Amino acid sequence: MSHDREAADWWATAVSRIEPNVIELRGRPVQDLIGGVSFAGVIWLMLRGDLPSPAQERLLEAALVSSVDHGPHAPSIAVARMAATCGIGLNNAVATGVNLLGDVHGGAGEQCMRLLADVRDRPATAVAQWRARDRYLPGFGHRFHTVDPRRDPLLRAVEQAVADGVVEGGYLRAAYTVEQQLHPVPINIDGCTAVVYAELGFPPPLARGLFVLSRSVGILAHAWEETGQGRRNKGPIPPTIQPTYTGPRRSGP
Amino acid sequence: MSHDREAADWWATAVSRIEPNVIELRGRPVQDLIGGVSFAGVIWLMLRGDLPSPAQERLLEAALVSSVDHGPHAPSIAVARMAATCGIGLNNAVATGVNLLGDVHGGAGEQCMRLLADVRDRPATAVAQWRARDRYLPGFGHRFHTVDPRRDPLLRAVEQAVADGVVEGGYLRAAYTVEQQLHPVPINIDGCTAVVYAELGFPPPLARGLFVLSRSVGILAHAWEETGQGRRNKGPIPPTIQPTYTGPRRSGP
Amino acid sequence: MSHDREAADWWATAVSRIEPNVIELRGRPVQDLIGGVSFAGVIWLMLRGDLPSPAQERLLEAALVSSVDHGPHAPSIAVARMAATCGIGLNNAVATGVNLLGDVHGGAGEQCMRLLADVRDRPATAVAQWRARDRYLPGFGHRFHTVDPRRDPLLRAVEQAVADGVVEGGYLRAAYTVEQQLHPVPINIDGCTAVVYAELGFPPPLARGLFVLSRSVGILAHAWEETGQGRRNKGPIPPTIQPTYTGPRRSGP
Amino acid sequence: MSHDREAADWWATAVSRIEPNVIELRGRPVQDLIGGVSFAGVIWLMLRGDLPSPAQERLLEAALVSSVDHGPHAPSIAVARMAATCGIGLNNAVATGVNLLGDVHGGAGEQCMRLLADVRDRPATAVAQWRARDRYLPGFGHRFHTVDPRRDPLLRAVEQAVADGVVEGGYLRAAYTVEQQLHPVPINIDGCTAVVYAELGFPPPLARGLFVLSRSVGILAHAWEETGQGRRNKGPIPPTIQPTYTGPRRSGP
Repeated sequence: MSHDREAADWWATAVSRIEPNVIELRGRPVQDLIGGVSFAGVIWLMLRGDLPSPAQERLLEAALVSSVDHGPHAPSIAVARMAATCGIGLNNAVATGVNLLGDVHGGAGEQCMRLLADVRDRPATAVAQWRARDRYLPGFGHRFHTVDPRRDPLLRAVEQAVADGVVEGGYLRAAYTVEQQLHPVPINIDGCTAVVYAELGFPPPLARGLFVLSRSVGILAHAWEETGQGRRNKGPIPPTIQPTYTGPRRSGP
Repeated sequence: MSHDREAADWWATAVSRIEPNVIELRGRPVQDLIGGVSFAGVIWLMLRGDLPSPAQERLLEAALVSSVDHGPHAPSIAVARMAATCGIGLNNAVATGVNLLGDVHGGAGEQCMRLLADVRDRPATAVAQWRARDRYLPGFGHRFHTVDPRRDPLLRAVEQAVADGVVEGGYLRAAYTVEQQLHPVPINIDGCTAVVYAELGFPPPLARGLFVLSRSVGILAHAWEETGQGRRNKGPIPPTIQPTYTGPRRSGP
Repeated sequence: MSHDREAADWWATAVSRIEPNVIELRGRPVQDLIGGVSFAGVIWLMLRGDLPSPAQERLLEAALVSSVDHGPHAPSIAVARMAATCGIGLNNAVATGVNLLGDVHGGAGEQCMRLLADVRDRPATAVAQWRARDRYLPGFGHRFHTVDPRRDPLLRAVEQAVADGVVEGGYLRAAYTVEQQLHPVPINIDGCTAVVYAELGFPPPLARGLFVLSRSVGILAHAWEETGQGRRNKGPIPPTIQPTYTGPRRSGP
Repeated sequence: MSHDREAADWWATAVSRIEPNVIELRGRPVQDLIGGVSFAGVIWLMLRGDLPSPAQERLLEAALVSSVDHGPHAPSIAVARMAATCGIGLNNAVATGVNLLGDVHGGAGEQCMRLLADVRDRPATAVAQWRARDRYLPGFGHRFHTVDPRRDPLLRAVEQAVADGVVEGGYLRAAYTVEQQLHPVPINIDGCTAVVYAELGFPPPLARGLFVLSRSVGILAHAWEETGQGRRNKGPIPPTIQPTYTGPRRSGP
């Protein structure tokens, strides 16, 4: 094989075909998508290769809408606001926030999808086994909300989709099973969106990926608001409050 | 003012109100948005504080759809694919790609909005003045496409919105003015989306912000595809091709 | 030119030569550097292509040591600590902090080097011209320290190097000129390190580059300390303090 | 406890004490460190709280020097070069590279330290057990070098330190044990630096942290060289080579 063919194959992709005056996304000319498919529809297309049905698209939109923001207490939001005051681009500020959406901050959706798959297959025993390994189950419990206002509309939307034959419902039933066994610990937003993404057939790592797309909106909105406030080098607390120093003191004069 | 009030004010925001069992985005309960507003509609809400009309929303969707991907030649796409092979999270891979969407890679939309505003206000003289300062005008010309397939559907959508009284049309006319004067250099995708965002009333820095949200979709799709291919520590070219060394040679044997 | 040659040339570099069983940095076998050259010496080598004299190396070490940390009030430090609680790698936490070292947070050194070069060349007029453009001069003044404890040891080290004929002294004299004209506004750490880097012959953008290498040490130390404290999803303020909400209230009951 | 005390405690640290006109690093006034302690010495101080002996410092310098660069084939280097062509700051380019130093790219040092500790404690059985779990042992084998030129000078330096009573030698013996059992698979640079860091008493996660500090030098040098070459939006391969498209074709005309 020639070296230039090697370099071309090194970057082989089925996602898009870009040639002079040609842009195809998953085999579809971009000009057929502009004006014809929603942003959420193109998210589905790019990740899966086909277009969603209207009912699938509505469900995806509901999940994407639900997790855009959780205020300045969320590390992803706070660091983007601080970044916006340091003389870097708005894109760099958003990247700073997205970088924090790891296993602990948003990653619970990915882990919850694995839990729900397990509970669906072994409803009698899975929850106990997961709890034996870890006191906290991913997607359940919140340090802040006792009833998350996003739970009911999201789970109701999935119930409707089950009734309409759009999705099968096995993951939703698994979520209810876990909720019952953990009562009064409620399902949280990571859990609710995990139900949606699992019912729609997304693989677990894309729960995190879709959360990234959703939360990027809140990160951008907060970074943009901060830009308008004009602070420079914003620290986490006002300069009048000194961090407590817990280290050694210099001995003697 | 007490210190705790200072700390609360340090993080003051009008974007969202988060209290136990309450999540409001721009003053609207999140449960009213889930299922009722599209993802693009919530993007508008979060950045501007109100909801778009259906016609405004369609125009925003068209622009967001148009710039999701430009293949592995785009640095933002390539670095995210490489990142995905280095044992870091999918969120870290997306952040790596987004971090590159700076003044040169995506930032042209922001600069083009300033150009269009200037041409709209001074159609007779602005283009010549911009060209005197820089040979390249932001949002015009492409090293790859002679006719970008995204131009016609985007500009036609704006024309329709002008005809329907949805937008005023001043930025669209400015874009046509620049195209005429630069002929045969065509408007590119940064220019076309700049027309949309300007007509919809977004401030220039948000052209970059909206591009970040759009391109994040392609970045995620490519990072995810790369994950499935199983490479580890993917370099930019195959290991059989050695970078040319142009530095000093060790003297002597 | 064949395509494989093109791909090799696309990645041409004079920084290092890497071939099977061969690693040369700036033309020097790495095995000759290990054990023979200090870390600071290799920093100089990699950025400039030759090795520093012992006196040059001491001066570089002094500047690198001086700016490693400025505590949790510094955005770069705070965001890295928050990142370390989100389930991402220590490298991702350091990258998050480094990403914030932009034009406002650390970039002052780069701008100060340009100021000092101008004052050196036009001592009578440059300061007034810079002040006419901007009230604040880069590298001078601090919101926190009236006398920065790093000023005297750094400037004294440069004075000694001038006396020893190691550096010329023009930038140091320019710094004193500015200090006199701004009295009582003192030179700050960005200004002091700018003097060192300028006297040593580094181009202005590398003032920011060297600051990045220096501050990375503090960022890593803080991220590592935070890891040991075991918090998850650390926000900027304790959860008991709610950010002030300044947006619209939902109307009606 | 008052809220302001809470906010101060939220950011408690033993790393540094920053008060007006006071900067202490690990309890030592910064003015005593400038000019008196090397950059490598301050790295040790910041991570561990005390200063190294001259012999410990030499060993740390040797390891830091050894891994600064591995050329444009290394993803960390390549993405930083590409980032430098996208109109973002030099700090953002370095952060982009550092972000990639994850479990697969540099993280092997951390894992190798755990392997060496296990082999040191159970020399007869540990290697076989690790190999039963994974074909590749962290820190051993290289796809490129059959004999890494950095091995001998690093291991010789550790041997000397053992002879001088500076370090104990248990991790070095463990490394030789693994090399013997894997013959002819050699120890690689991650393994050699893991020996150094383990002998010096660093905990495993700091093997990755120290690698980040070391590789940042090469990342900066390459990003800076790329800046000087003037490319804009540098992709991974020349624009004349098209990535192979492996997806669906649009059917019919």
